[in-house]
Amino acid sequence: MLEHTHSLPELTKAERKERIAALEAEIELLSRRIKDAKIPVVILFEGWSASGKGSVLSKLILNIDPRNYKVHSTTPPEPRERRRPFLARYWSELPAQGRFAIFDRSWYQDLSIYRRDEGFDDDEFYRRVRAVNTMERQLTDGGTLILKFFLHIDRDEQAHRLDELAASEVTRWRVTERDRDQNEHYKAFYRLFDEMLESTDTACAPWHVIAAEKRTERLLAVYSIVVAEMRRALEEGVGGADAALPLGGPFDLLPAPDPDEIDLSLTLDRDEYKRRLKLLQGRLSELHSVLYHRKMPVILVYEGYDAAGKGGNIRRVAAALDPRGYEVVPVAAPNPYEIAHHYLWRFWTRLPLNGHIGIFDRSWYGRVLVERVEGFCSERDYRRAYQEINEFERELMDFGAVILKFWVHIDKDEQLRRFEDRQNTPEKQWKITDEDWRNREKWPQYEAALRDMLRYTSTARAPWHIIESNDKKFARIKTLSLIVKTLEQALDGGE
Amino acid sequence: MLEHTHSLPELTKAERKERIAALEAEIELLSRRIKDAKIPVVILFEGWSASGKGSVLSKLILNIDPRNYKVHSTTPPEPRERRRPFLARYWSELPAQGRFAIFDRSWYQDLSIYRRDEGFDDDEFYRRVRAVNTMERQLTDGGTLILKFFLHIDRDEQAHRLDELAASEVTRWRVTERDRDQNEHYKAFYRLFDEMLESTDTACAPWHVIAAEKRTERLLAVYSIVVAEMRRALEEGVGGADAALPLGGPFDLLPAPDPDEIDLSLTLDRDEYKRRLKLLQGRLSELHSVLYHRKMPVILVYEGYDAAGKGGNIRRVAAALDPRGYEVVPVAAPNPYEIAHHYLWRFWTRLPLNGHIGIFDRSWYGRVLVERVEGFCSERDYRRAYQEINEFERELMDFGAVILKFWVHIDKDEQLRRFEDRQNTPEKQWKITDEDWRNREKWPQYEAALRDMLRYTSTARAPWHIIESNDKKFARIKTLSLIVKTLEQALDGGE
Repeated sequence: MLEHTHSLPELTKAERKERIAALEAEIELLSRRIKDAKIPVVILFEGWSASGKGSVLSKLILNIDPRNYKVHSTTPPEPRERRRPFLARYWSELPAQGRFAIFDRSWYQDLSIYRRDEGFDDDEFYRRVRAVNTMERQLTDGGTLILKFFLHIDRDEQAHRLDELAASEVTRWRVTERDRDQNEHYKAFYRLFDEMLESTDTACAPWHVIAAEKRTERLLAVYSIVVAEMRRALEEGVGGADAALPLGGPFDLLPAPDPDEIDLSLTLDRDEYKRRLKLLQGRLSELHSVLYHRKMPVILVYEGYDAAGKGGNIRRVAAALDPRGYEVVPVAAPNPYEIAHHYLWRFWTRLPLNGHIGIFDRSWYGRVLVERVEGFCSERDYRRAYQEINEFERELMDFGAVILKFWVHIDKDEQLRRFEDRQNTPEKQWKITDEDWRNREKWPQYEAALRDMLRYTSTARAPWHIIESNDKKFARIKTLSLIVKTLEQALDGGE
Repeated sequence: MLEHTHSLPELTKAERKERIAALEAEIELLSRRIKDAKIPVVILFEGWSASGKGSVLSKLILNIDPRNYKVHSTTPPEPRERRRPFLARYWSELPAQGRFAIFDRSWYQDLSIYRRDEGFDDDEFYRRVRAVNTMERQLTDGGTLILKFFLHIDRDEQAHRLDELAASEVTRWRVTERDRDQNEHYKAFYRLFDEMLESTDTACAPWHVIAAEKRTERLLAVYSIVVAEMRRALEEGVGGADAALPLGGPFDLLPAPDPDEIDLSLTLDRDEYKRRLKLLQGRLSELHSVLYHRKMPVILVYEGYDAAGKGGNIRRVAAALDPRGYEVVPVAAPNPYEIAHHYLWRFWTRLPLNGHIGIFDRSWYGRVLVERVEGFCSERDYRRAYQEINEFERELMDFGAVILKFWVHIDKDEQLRRFEDRQNTPEKQWKITDEDWRNREKWPQYEAALRDMLRYTSTARAPWHIIESNDKKFARIKTLSLIVKTLEQALDGGE
């Protein structure tokens, strides 16, 4: 791909200058329209050392209202950042609607420079390629405009620039060992970059390789593309493609349990409950200590009808855990800032560190449950979400996470009993709201959403577990048993 | 202080159990009321290794709605965290109104364990003590309830517990070299902790030293204090004390310039402007490179009337800078999440890394300008703020930051000309809103606020610079000159 740089018409110096001024005015105008149109924009710059990324970027941002962009300089991950999937730190830098996130180097470092530095194998490389392509497709489908620039210079030009920088007292420190190393092993880096570009040049987020020898020409090239793409986004919109794949995507889907056939008569007597609760909590506490030590990330997902008993169930699990190694993440309606992002954003940015247990009290499945039923997203959005969610969970599992998903189930009569009990007990009244009653009226719609969720997201690696919860004691013991059994297997496998 | 642990009445085992159950119910109830009353609560646990911090904390949180608290485990700062003042990372973990932030170790690590690890001198220790006491006072004055627990055990008890942990296969890995070291040098750590406790046991945030030998008793002690303090906060409110000191606090205040005597007739002709602009930008670019390399943090604060020309001024500064080393932080009205925090929170959490230049387009001075004029805070709040702001800037400067504060000044007639120009020029219309006109009507109130701001926050170390801006060219050159001169001095001093 590096052979095919963006070509420009021949222009005189005066023409170029004039053209740049015109493009700058257009960027200023279009970026304001982008803001009004609420389109999130990612512009990322990759390229050779000393290819002029910084100088292009610094000119570009002068044309955008500072209230509306943020520059992110990517440096190697900090220790704590390594304790989450590699894309997590970039997700937290993604722009809200109408804003620009401008990356001076980006996740493509993880597909090029770090590949060399860390020497990971081809399997890992292709896993990361898939992760990046998936993320960019999801973002584009969600309406984000992504512009990817690679600034290309040849070996002699690079050597010349490094020498120039080194000649001045003010800039000498900028020329690092690494830069020299890149020039010395130019061919190896060429292959590295080329492979990265080839494998991530997608229809939704293509690369723009820029001939960066000449200052004005590279600026002109970047400006022209930025203007053309912003205009296209404003005219045609971004993304929203229908996935061509069947719902759920290319995943191994397990046969879905039928909600009508869940046996809600299962119970457990009090003594047996107490005895097993104590045993299981003791065992879980030990396992938590081990997984903390081994830095295994664990994610528990709780979904279920209102009053199904998620809270009490979570409490029984949490009671066995050391607070330094777990976190309950309660998921309510997104706040305005969260709504201005991709729906997965607030989960990518709240992942537990490895070695920790993240307990999600409701989760990303809100997309295909409440958001579907209440019409907070379009049909196209939620139908696409099954695949996106499976992909999200695949990323977590590829990072080493154990995921357990619980559908905590009650029937409609049991819900009514619990609602009325809450209503009639003064110290429980805060637990019941008008919204609970409104949701209850939509029981059939929620049931339809539940069926589809179970059908399209019960993957072989992360299946749904049905927790029969008309009897809460039975539900808690079943959940704890599943957690203990799964962790025992996972920790066994890891040795 | 370690001698004086919290004492409890003698109780039988059954009585203790009953009392704990009662306190747990109360914590559940009171924490819901705390939420409704919008009181932010910090509960922090410090103490000896193996003193049971984790076990108390894990019990405590089971009584609080998980939607309403977050546990923060403090570990040594990451490399990037060391590039900001040491308190910055804790500020970002402080709770919003009605929420609990529960710290498993906290900023007190910086006054005890890290003091020993990093071996910093007494001066630095007392600087940190002052920083911590100042922060806690500011938070309390802003309505945050702070509860500080230190769990105390003696040397033999600690040795015994460490042996016990080491005896079990599951918990063995938890006993680290550091824990053994603490036990071995118990006396030295005793002095370390004692000095920390003594110097930070303030009226607004006193320490509670808990005798932590016995599991139930330490729990009972912590629960009792949590209940008593939450109840007190609900009944009496938190903070809001009038500072006893004169406005601005114990700082060296410079004579304030009189806004009426600012010479707005100063101008610069176009050629001279262009010549000097180029020179100064070139020099600034060099200085930026040096300070980036030397990791000096720089903060530029821009305040001024609407249409005074802050934006254009900032652009001329930014044009000289490498985007990898500066950031424009535009400050608008706080969003709901920001409003739910201390007013300094959104600045503490957006400080530039050292080596970077943070350009604040409006700033924390909003507290004593717009918030004062519009009544968004009480008179007591903004009068207290002068001192709080001076303290905030002192923290930044103690960390090594260079702070430059510009009041970009125009007179009322000039503002009118500019407003009308914006109104009448189609491509500038987006720059003018009804709010600008409304603010203009309050010119006298803003002028009074300006006078007080200049009077009480022009400290010897961070004075205000008046930028005469009726002529924008003059203003830009004056600003750039001041920046260049100040940075030259600062960088000179650093060699």
